[in-house]
Amino acid sequence: MNFSSKLLENAVNEVAQLPGIGRRTALRLVLHLLKQPKERTTYLTTALENLRTDIKLCKKCHNISDVELCEICANKNRDEQFLCVVEDIRDVMAIEGTGQFRGLYHVLGGKISPIDGVGPQNLTIDSLVQKVREGTVKEIIFALSSTMEGDTTNFYIYKQIEDLDIRVSTIARGISVGDELEYADEITLGRSILNRIPFEGSLKNS
Amino acid sequence: MNFSSKLLENAVNEVAQLPGIGRRTALRLVLHLLKQPKERTTYLTTALENLRTDIKLCKKCHNISDVELCEICANKNRDEQFLCVVEDIRDVMAIEGTGQFRGLYHVLGGKISPIDGVGPQNLTIDSLVQKVREGTVKEIIFALSSTMEGDTTNFYIYKQIEDLDIRVSTIARGISVGDELEYADEITLGRSILNRIPFEGSLKNS
Repeated sequence: MNFSSKLLENAVNEVAQLPGIGRRTALRLVLHLLKQPKERTTYLTTALENLRTDIKLCKKCHNISDVELCEICANKNRDEQFLCVVEDIRDVMAIEGTGQFRGLYHVLGGKISPIDGVGPQNLTIDSLVQKVREGTVKEIIFALSSTMEGDTTNFYIYKQIEDLDIRVSTIARGISVGDELEYADEITLGRSILNRIPFEGSLKNS
Repeated sequence: MNFSSKLLENAVNEVAQLPGIGRRTALRLVLHLLKQPKERTTYLTTALENLRTDIKLCKKCHNISDVELCEICANKNRDEQFLCVVEDIRDVMAIEGTGQFRGLYHVLGGKISPIDGVGPQNLTIDSLVQKVREGTVKEIIFALSSTMEGDTTNFYIYKQIEDLDIRVSTIARGISVGDELEYADEITLGRSILNRIPFEGSLKNS
């Protein structure tokens, strides 16, 4: 691309560094900002700067938070005995959206993935193990995505806490509610048969 | 979406106002920035702010420029007799990319589109007509997109300069180079038959 303006080129280059945004899309976004009143750009840049400067991680669960101790950890009504291990804030938001979990979370900040240069030391695993050893937690629920990296991370954590007297569970994998069997992949369908549950149990949340 | 952080929510809301970016994508982009070093966000916001504050429109062709008179208009080697009318800077970049045009541009800033609230007074049409009346331009080349709005804009401009002794042309519509006839739409194919050109002429740029 041959820009007539260095300012425009810089802006496009910066925006194009965001994941999934190519240079053409970046140009479209930047030209959109130019057509809008100046304040729009100021609102956007201020929001991003404020976020990056002032954001904190909850000292207990490591979730993104505006304060030292996040809303969920500070909530006295939540059950400290259940600890759900997730990858990032999106998973917390997704699980909170179901309204089915009243325990606390532990946000790892990623999965063990040597290819991406993410080792156990880059995640909050030490803090998790320490928290579990303190004794209030009765059950750990792994809710990482069901990939090689997710399974590795689950196993790595499990090895460090297996000597403790706590339950370790993982969220159920199976056919999505409303899905047709014939379109399900074989591994998922196979697992949902192996891990079948008593029929009465399946009526609880319907 | 239920955010645990007001800062995060603000940032996502602002990013989600960009065209084609929903709230989920916005969240993904913002979380990406949070994972990167702080400077990345500063580079991005500075580039956007500088662009929005310091950008100028060329006083002659109204193209986006860092200076009063853009590179193309300031270039003594370009032929002032040919004036190509385009919608925005992307069209200028596209035509410049071909290396086939040595004249000057006039950037309208959009197309007449009552549905989007864009009338002739929102575009640089007056400045175009005035420029043409000054007399140096010998040919106007319309290079707007071939839509209802583009055709309307062409016609609106044409009506204001038809009494002048200048050539008015529009870029050729037809089958793309390399395309199969059978996949071309009927209107394009029809036009490319009606506006057929001498065979010798087609060899010029090949």
